Amino acid sequence: MAGDAVNIDAIRAAARRLDGQTRRTPLLSSPRLDEIAGRRILVKPECLQVTGSFKFRGALSALTALPEDVRERGVLAYSSGNHAQGVAEAARRLGVPAVIVMPADAPALKLANTRAMGAEVVLYDRETESREEIGADLAERRGFVLVRPYDEPEVIAGQGTIGLEIAADLPEGVEADVLTCCGGGGLTSGIALALEADASSLRARPVEPEGFDDVTRSLAAGRIERNARAAGSICDAIVTPAPGDLTFPIMQRLCGPGLVVSDAEALRAMALAFLHLKIVVEPGGAVALAAALRGRTEGAGETVVVIASGGNVDPETFSTALAGFHADRP
Amino acid sequence: MAGDAVNIDAIRAAARRLDGQTRRTPLLSSPRLDEIAGRRILVKPECLQVTGSFKFRGALSALTALPEDVRERGVLAYSSGNHAQGVAEAARRLGVPAVIVMPADAPALKLANTRAMGAEVVLYDRETESREEIGADLAERRGFVLVRPYDEPEVIAGQGTIGLEIAADLPEGVEADVLTCCGGGGLTSGIALALEADASSLRARPVEPEGFDDVTRSLAAGRIERNARAAGSICDAIVTPAPGDLTFPIMQRLCGPGLVVSDAEALRAMALAFLHLKIVVEPGGAVALAAALRGRTEGAGETVVVIASGGNVDPETFSTALAGFHADRP
Repeated sequence: MAGDAVNIDAIRAAARRLDGQTRRTPLLSSPRLDEIAGRRILVKPECLQVTGSFKFRGALSALTALPEDVRERGVLAYSSGNHAQGVAEAARRLGVPAVIVMPADAPALKLANTRAMGAEVVLYDRETESREEIGADLAERRGFVLVRPYDEPEVIAGQGTIGLEIAADLPEGVEADVLTCCGGGGLTSGIALALEADASSLRARPVEPEGFDDVTRSLAAGRIERNARAAGSICDAIVTPAPGDLTFPIMQRLCGPGLVVSDAEALRAMALAFLHLKIVVEPGGAVALAAALRGRTEGAGETVVVIASGGNVDPETFSTALAGFHADRP
Repeated sequence: MAGDAVNIDAIRAAARRLDGQTRRTPLLSSPRLDEIAGRRILVKPECLQVTGSFKFRGALSALTALPEDVRERGVLAYSSGNHAQGVAEAARRLGVPAVIVMPADAPALKLANTRAMGAEVVLYDRETESREEIGADLAERRGFVLVRPYDEPEVIAGQGTIGLEIAADLPEGVEADVLTCCGGGGLTSGIALALEADASSLRARPVEPEGFDDVTRSLAAGRIERNARAAGSICDAIVTPAPGDLTFPIMQRLCGPGLVVSDAEALRAMALAFLHLKIVVEPGGAVALAAALRGRTEGAGETVVVIASGGNVDPETFSTALAGFHADRP
């Protein structure tokens, strides 16, 4: 289905299939965060989503869109972790087998959780092997259907349901940026399509970690640019080589300029989400909040919406974020 | 108003006053937690409530129930922290002054947050002074209205709105215990009254920390029993001297037996809530989940509902909970 167009009708259809299976996340806020940023920050905590990240939406959307006889052969995914968990849990709920191709250096928690969901895990080396080739090979040899993590219309449609919810929860006509944590662009392009249809005063803007700002540079250049490195950020969940062939044209047409944050800013955002929102956010899931906490940028409205896209973080990394923040205090 | 009866009508009236001001918290769950407990655990994350605990419900209920001319003179509260924040934020939203009497050994975060909400803070020594006397004295001298933390009908009514939401969110007829983190009994008695009216197959049961099990012992003895110590638990949020004169008869009539958990069990529950629910829970807010994680107890149903009552925890304590849990692993 990779060649199909994705549009608002596909997003609305995904929302109907997901209804009752995904959590309808609220918009959280805190007077203290607003004070720090100098504007109102509304946080959509997709870390509270089933499997701890928004990826469950896209995965369940893709699996429920497959013809039943195809789905029953089983599904296959390659992922740095959150997409894997999303596909594994969606497969478990639908009663079909799942094989997950994961990097050998993925956080232990993500590996354990994926296996605990009943999926078969195949490991690969992120520096020397191509997950795309391994995935395609396994799909061919074993007859499983590959569910791509972002460059897949039904995955984009599933992530777009977040945009529908934001549009429904904000008063009509509010002008605001919607900051998204951006890897390959599935979340960002899905939300952008939903906002175009349901809330044209809201604009999606991708946020990326330093050194892995392929989408930001691609949007600025007007053509797809790749990252120099394939790994090495604490924001592992959103490290991808380049924007997708499907997601990039959507982002190019609809999104505002990208934003880039440092690892230190992501860790500080995690600590502030802990203190003032009581949610657990992983580094890659905190970059949008980190960008919002910088304060009001030129042309931005009084309100900013932020996706906290995932919470699958090891206890050690989380404690590091808390300790680092605490040490900064006067 | 301390002499008035509290009943289901008061709870429904509180729900109408709170509508749009409090967060309608969902019921979260995780296959991993269910696996550990051997039954389905549904967690109501009141740590995501405004001010980080359920106390905002009771505080806003009490303040909105006051006649306007009384409320405008200002309000006063004594509290180990969460009630203080609830009253301070409710006062801020209603534009009235607030004085908060807090123990000098309360977590730094709670003191800072209460002051940041614009309240005046008066400190006292938990071991040698009576907060009740200090509060009553300040109320008399300065004309502020005292809002008691639990033995106050409109506070109990506000906390009871949690019970209405649980009753509405569970399928009719499900038999389950609703485990509450219990200090003076405002949360527990409010929920018990709401369940009696709206979901008679659900039964509230208080959970307390070891050494501060006054409610559990009082329920077993059929009369109010006091704790030997006034401080010394990591579960500071739910350490109170004895059940309230208003709350105890309600709990005696409607609640199942109390449960008592160790500090280590509370810390483990915090770590599991971090890992599998992505929420931040403080020690006193984790005791109900800790009791549920022990597994199915005699006479209990397939499902157990748990209140995660607050998330106002210092980074150091939270990191300790995560580190301790991690060290336990094989």
